[in-house]
Amino acid sequence: MAEAGARPWARSDEKHQAIVRAAREVFLDKGYLGTNMDLIASRSGVSKQTVYTHFGSKEALFVEIVGSMTGAAGDRVHHDRPELGDGDLEAYLRAFAERQLRIVTEPELLRLRRLVIGEVGRFPELAKVLYERGPQRAIDELTAMFEPLRERGLLAGDPAAMAEWFNWLVMAAPLNRAMMLGDAAVPADDDLRRHVAEAVRIFLAAFAP
Amino acid sequence: MAEAGARPWARSDEKHQAIVRAAREVFLDKGYLGTNMDLIASRSGVSKQTVYTHFGSKEALFVEIVGSMTGAAGDRVHHDRPELGDGDLEAYLRAFAERQLRIVTEPELLRLRRLVIGEVGRFPELAKVLYERGPQRAIDELTAMFEPLRERGLLAGDPAAMAEWFNWLVMAAPLNRAMMLGDAAVPADDDLRRHVAEAVRIFLAAFAP
Repeated sequence: MAEAGARPWARSDEKHQAIVRAAREVFLDKGYLGTNMDLIASRSGVSKQTVYTHFGSKEALFVEIVGSMTGAAGDRVHHDRPELGDGDLEAYLRAFAERQLRIVTEPELLRLRRLVIGEVGRFPELAKVLYERGPQRAIDELTAMFEPLRERGLLAGDPAAMAEWFNWLVMAAPLNRAMMLGDAAVPADDDLRRHVAEAVRIFLAAFAP
Repeated sequence: MAEAGARPWARSDEKHQAIVRAAREVFLDKGYLGTNMDLIASRSGVSKQTVYTHFGSKEALFVEIVGSMTGAAGDRVHHDRPELGDGDLEAYLRAFAERQLRIVTEPELLRLRRLVIGEVGRFPELAKVLYERGPQRAIDELTAMFEPLRERGLLAGDPAAMAEWFNWLVMAAPLNRAMMLGDAAVPADDDLRRHVAEAVRIFLAAFAP
């Protein structure tokens, strides 16, 4: 390990990554209260002191896990988003929504979301991080996607408001079912496509000019 | 206390009710893991043995709390629901949705929902109880409400599917924001009415014949 700089570690540090990986597993498996730093240290093959040197506290480590998992999922949804071009608007919106819904309903993200919601009383800041990097980011990206569509006369409405309606038309039923009924309630491919097609139909019935 | 019957208690029993009230407070305040039967006994002024006589286990008591709180909220939404008659459909749907949204976003119910979601991994059955008595009951009641409206030619679509879309158009954005951003994110009256009005407009754009 390079020890020459002012900080004894970097984010790319192997130990740092090993701690993050172990912490993700332990938090998702045992919940916040059920997690202790000894277990994370032993699973990542470092000393407990090293865990504290890297993250300072259990809470800071939890914030890191929430931020990195949510951010990575958002990157997968939003990076390299295709442009509509001369394509069909309905098909374009469907393809976007199917990808978004598949990523957001992956079991690890559902477990993270349940865990964070369960801790809102104790850690309100943490759920804000998840909200901002999850739904709020999705709504912001959709807003940016809808602005040019409105300028072209393909949609009629306030882009930010349309973005919020679109997001929840696509997400609400499957996400809320999965929150409570477990991962088995996540729709399989055919059901997911039917659900998205109807969500897009409703959206366009309300917001196509 | 009447001790003559086969069971030493009844649901109407004062002790029983005192235990339920204390348990509701303690679970909502401390979460499932943070709750112990000693505290519930001392808050309800009975012995720990009496708590176990009435409920058998901490888990059974938690199920009772979830079922009774969710059931009572559902009763308030659905009992004495007015008929549309010759009234205006849009105004009728708005009035129903405003009442439903106000009840579902009451702070105690939001806390219960967060608590139950946080425990899905440990108690999947419990979240099913909440889902069935909460969203699923709402969707079933809406289905029954939409069937005659479809027969009268005021709505076009499968009643159960329309019910699910209506429910989540109304609930999704405020409920999911409140789940993560806390009770302060619940919309105040003006915002709630605007939100509901737009939800109903979108619904009718998609499902009015």
